[in-house]
Amino acid sequence: MIVLGIDPGLSLTGWGVIEATNCNNIIPLNYGCITTFAKQSLITRIQKINEQLQLIIDKYSPDNVAVEELFFLKESKSVGAVGQARGAIVLTVALNKIEMFEYNPRTVKIALTGYGSADKHQMQNMVKTLLRLKEIPKPDDAGDALAIATCHINTALRKFGQSK
Amino acid sequence: MIVLGIDPGLSLTGWGVIEATNCNNIIPLNYGCITTFAKQSLITRIQKINEQLQLIIDKYSPDNVAVEELFFLKESKSVGAVGQARGAIVLTVALNKIEMFEYNPRTVKIALTGYGSADKHQMQNMVKTLLRLKEIPKPDDAGDALAIATCHINTALRKFGQSK
Repeated sequence: MIVLGIDPGLSLTGWGVIEATNCNNIIPLNYGCITTFAKQSLITRIQKINEQLQLIIDKYSPDNVAVEELFFLKESKSVGAVGQARGAIVLTVALNKIEMFEYNPRTVKIALTGYGSADKHQMQNMVKTLLRLKEIPKPDDAGDALAIATCHINTALRKFGQSK
Repeated sequence: MIVLGIDPGLSLTGWGVIEATNCNNIIPLNYGCITTFAKQSLITRIQKINEQLQLIIDKYSPDNVAVEELFFLKESKSVGAVGQARGAIVLTVALNKIEMFEYNPRTVKIALTGYGSADKHQMQNMVKTLLRLKEIPKPDDAGDALAIATCHINTALRKFGQSK
């Protein structure tokens, strides 16, 4: 099973692709960030997010996509920017007919550390350990995307068995 | 020149298509709303907005699309929902390679009534008058979309001349 995890943002969208047949053998295939700039028009930024995401989908053919839920406690301007990126990401996933799952940050933290209030450092270290990476993935948004993908692998393999 | 005006929303996206060769002869071609429901998954809602919008674009081949700017004074949950719909709408426009313009509500009000604090009733009546409609367009979101399209016609024809 190949999962693409996404941490949406208009300036920075983190992404991470992992493959697993069971929860103890998760292989990171690649990770990174899609970057757009405030000086670009909204349509250019949305288009770049779509194009880059399409390249990732074409290259890795993920079975599922896992996306971080929209976090409403942030101030509305930030929610608006993330929301617009997220809408374009969800549409890109839909146009590729890939099943999408959403996880809130607390669920991701519990899935990885067993602790819903784990801090950023604990999460980064757990991603590094679980995916047997040499270093903590950078930038943070890519690490967050790998965490979301790993959370989905755990959930999906437990739910549907270890055979996929 | 054919303009598609859009008032984005996750539950209700208002749209209106108008055609004009000059500011005094604006013809409404059609208007309506794309509706999705809270009980549907986000991906289903985003997909429906994309599909319905694509049908409208295919039918009317607009030269430009005019979209209401994201209004950040609303509470963050509402901005998040509108933002996600808006991201999907912007991507749909981008994938169709149509030029998109954004207008804030105050600019639309000034363009139609000459008064930036015009109330909903004044705006609805002005849309009805300018587009020579028999009734105030319903629902309100469709009327707002026609207002945005009309604002763009005024701006575009003044800027680029009356020849298009």
